[in-house]
Amino acid sequence: MPFKSDTLSQRMEHACYPIRELFPLSEEIRKTGAEIYNASIGDPVPYLGTASYVVKAYRKALKEGKTSYCRPPGDFGFLDEIAKRYKRLYNLDIDSSKIFVTQGLSEAVAFLVESLMDKGRGAVLFNPYYPVYAPTVGLFGGTVVLSELDEGHGWAPSKENLEEKIKNAKSAGMDLKFMLVNNPNNPTGSMFSRKYLEDVVEVAKNNDLLIISDEIYDEIILVKEKMTCIGEVAKGVPHIIMNGLSKNWGGTGFRIGWVIMPEDDEGSKKLREGFTNLLSMRLCASTPAQLAGVEALSNAKAHRRYLKYIVKNIKERAEFMHKRLNEINGVSCQKAKGAFYLFPKIDLSKTKFKNDKEFCTELLRKEHVWVTRGSGFGLDSHLRTTVLPPVDILEKVAQGIENLVRC
Amino acid sequence: MPFKSDTLSQRMEHACYPIRELFPLSEEIRKTGAEIYNASIGDPVPYLGTASYVVKAYRKALKEGKTSYCRPPGDFGFLDEIAKRYKRLYNLDIDSSKIFVTQGLSEAVAFLVESLMDKGRGAVLFNPYYPVYAPTVGLFGGTVVLSELDEGHGWAPSKENLEEKIKNAKSAGMDLKFMLVNNPNNPTGSMFSRKYLEDVVEVAKNNDLLIISDEIYDEIILVKEKMTCIGEVAKGVPHIIMNGLSKNWGGTGFRIGWVIMPEDDEGSKKLREGFTNLLSMRLCASTPAQLAGVEALSNAKAHRRYLKYIVKNIKERAEFMHKRLNEINGVSCQKAKGAFYLFPKIDLSKTKFKNDKEFCTELLRKEHVWVTRGSGFGLDSHLRTTVLPPVDILEKVAQGIENLVRC
Repeated sequence: MPFKSDTLSQRMEHACYPIRELFPLSEEIRKTGAEIYNASIGDPVPYLGTASYVVKAYRKALKEGKTSYCRPPGDFGFLDEIAKRYKRLYNLDIDSSKIFVTQGLSEAVAFLVESLMDKGRGAVLFNPYYPVYAPTVGLFGGTVVLSELDEGHGWAPSKENLEEKIKNAKSAGMDLKFMLVNNPNNPTGSMFSRKYLEDVVEVAKNNDLLIISDEIYDEIILVKEKMTCIGEVAKGVPHIIMNGLSKNWGGTGFRIGWVIMPEDDEGSKKLREGFTNLLSMRLCASTPAQLAGVEALSNAKAHRRYLKYIVKNIKERAEFMHKRLNEINGVSCQKAKGAFYLFPKIDLSKTKFKNDKEFCTELLRKEHVWVTRGSGFGLDSHLRTTVLPPVDILEKVAQGIENLVRC
Repeated sequence: MPFKSDTLSQRMEHACYPIRELFPLSEEIRKTGAEIYNASIGDPVPYLGTASYVVKAYRKALKEGKTSYCRPPGDFGFLDEIAKRYKRLYNLDIDSSKIFVTQGLSEAVAFLVESLMDKGRGAVLFNPYYPVYAPTVGLFGGTVVLSELDEGHGWAPSKENLEEKIKNAKSAGMDLKFMLVNNPNNPTGSMFSRKYLEDVVEVAKNNDLLIISDEIYDEIILVKEKMTCIGEVAKGVPHIIMNGLSKNWGGTGFRIGWVIMPEDDEGSKKLREGFTNLLSMRLCASTPAQLAGVEALSNAKAHRRYLKYIVKNIKERAEFMHKRLNEINGVSCQKAKGAFYLFPKIDLSKTKFKNDKEFCTELLRKEHVWVTRGSGFGLDSHLRTTVLPPVDILEKVAQGIENLVRC
């Protein structure tokens, strides 16, 4: 067939990203001059800024001419600082040769899935999930197996449900390769306790699955509980830790993530080799941004100050929004323990809307309130709102939701 | 099968990047304290620097807090400046909604191939080719069809050879989707004349193939001939223009490329949609680097000054190296018209080496001269040397080659 309307590869039916799907409508509304109350995108920068000491280091790197290609797996100095971070925060001993710098965490996810998925293979996700995971598995031929998080119990994973889903998939002949955990969690704002993580590791071990843990919000903790890094509870079991500069340092526009593959089993070794080849084929991640990363991770005092400031604000906003949403008849919402999202349930039977996609589209069109539909995260009758904007904007968001639930 | 040694996806057998394969050996040698004469990587920054006016704009963007996520297809202002550049240089009228910013040109290649290739499909490359192209086609299930460039005629494409190769592939049942041109050319340093490009467009048109043109070196022209952009000769025929900040501005470490899909046929429209979805899934390219791009493209006067400086130096070095290599018995080398590479042929029958991989490995090990094997670009018995280092280092490179050809 020639280059015509049938031109896209079959895999492209999986390419989508629900968080941005209302972007065209939002641009239409903006053109009319109307204000939009935007709680759709997990970008702390417009409301809380980027850590200024990191921006300063970024500018310094540029001034000093650090603008050439970097080695594909990442700048040596940056890799060393990443290793030290995990010693400091989680008492993990990680060799820097097992760390890889990526162009944001999204490149990390794409390259891991590209390395591991094929037709006939599968990956386990917890539902709801961050919307990039599932389409990426599909793009590379794999099938997603979903294990439900328990909304009634603070979005906890269920060992029984997980075991059952894995068993069923295996019975159906699926070759499962990994399970992907996101902790603290986007979209729910929950945090997996150490006990729950130990359960997950046990299931992974019993089923020979790699565990990939996306911990991009691991220092944005809104409660007294301690964050558990997967590396603390998965020693000896193949696992991967992902993180980056986007959230804990407010460096969303920098596009710097990292991947740690600490284990020495055969699978992990092969994966490191393959992953390195994919990194080489895209040459490197931004050189000056990686040097900003050196300062981001090594200046612990400046980082504590920035974190204190953003966590205080996010906590206040999350508490306000949690209370406000639960006051709405037809809306119920779990408390956030980490990250900067809430994932309220909407009782659509009380509304005129068939599903949350219709609800969210109308919410933007009529109320100029922009949030993301829960079904984009795998779970209908929900919506995801960030708690990053100041309280007066969050009040507009809540009011818009209330108006629409009532109408 | 569990997560063990069989863990990588089948596609990963294609993941490789020959330009960096001697990196481990080079690091070994460096550890001994020995100096390496490195002409392996196409990075102008260590020798000629980055355009200082662009670095200044990059620092300004950071100072002004431009550090949040950007819209996935790119910053509006940057897209506008890219459109203006093509009007100014090539008199093309391009709507900025048909331009997309990528994390380097390598991301552009990956996403285009991901959008277009599948099992049973194929892509036409000219041999020798830039090493990222062929493995990327393989990674996404496609097959590469090679059409030989004619070394004896300044690496010109041959219309007859191209037509024949396409005919044979189609007879064998292959569903060809695109052909990829790289002009000015890496590794040969050649430039396709307008006439040759017109031939290529005619063949593409007759065979319903999309033309993708990688023009990352389009302002590094070492002769009086004028560069022809594919957009000038392919109106009405589906085509794509790729470029970025890496070479013409010396911004290799910034990771900013762009893709233009100017045509309005059904295939191009579908491709724009699919490509946009892939861009959304990785959120955005670096925001401050894109704002540096605005200045890079809009400050034409500062850019002319930078270009004049680098082209003068590259030209002198290319001329020196061309002459010097041709003086070696057993080495013959075509003149470079653009970019910053030479691709000399080595008469291996006069040496003890079976192939150019052995030759280049020994060259690095024994002479501490680091160049890249031609077979990595699809053509054995050649090597690629950059002409970026100053003449005294290029002399060491040539001397090392001479020593090894003689031994």
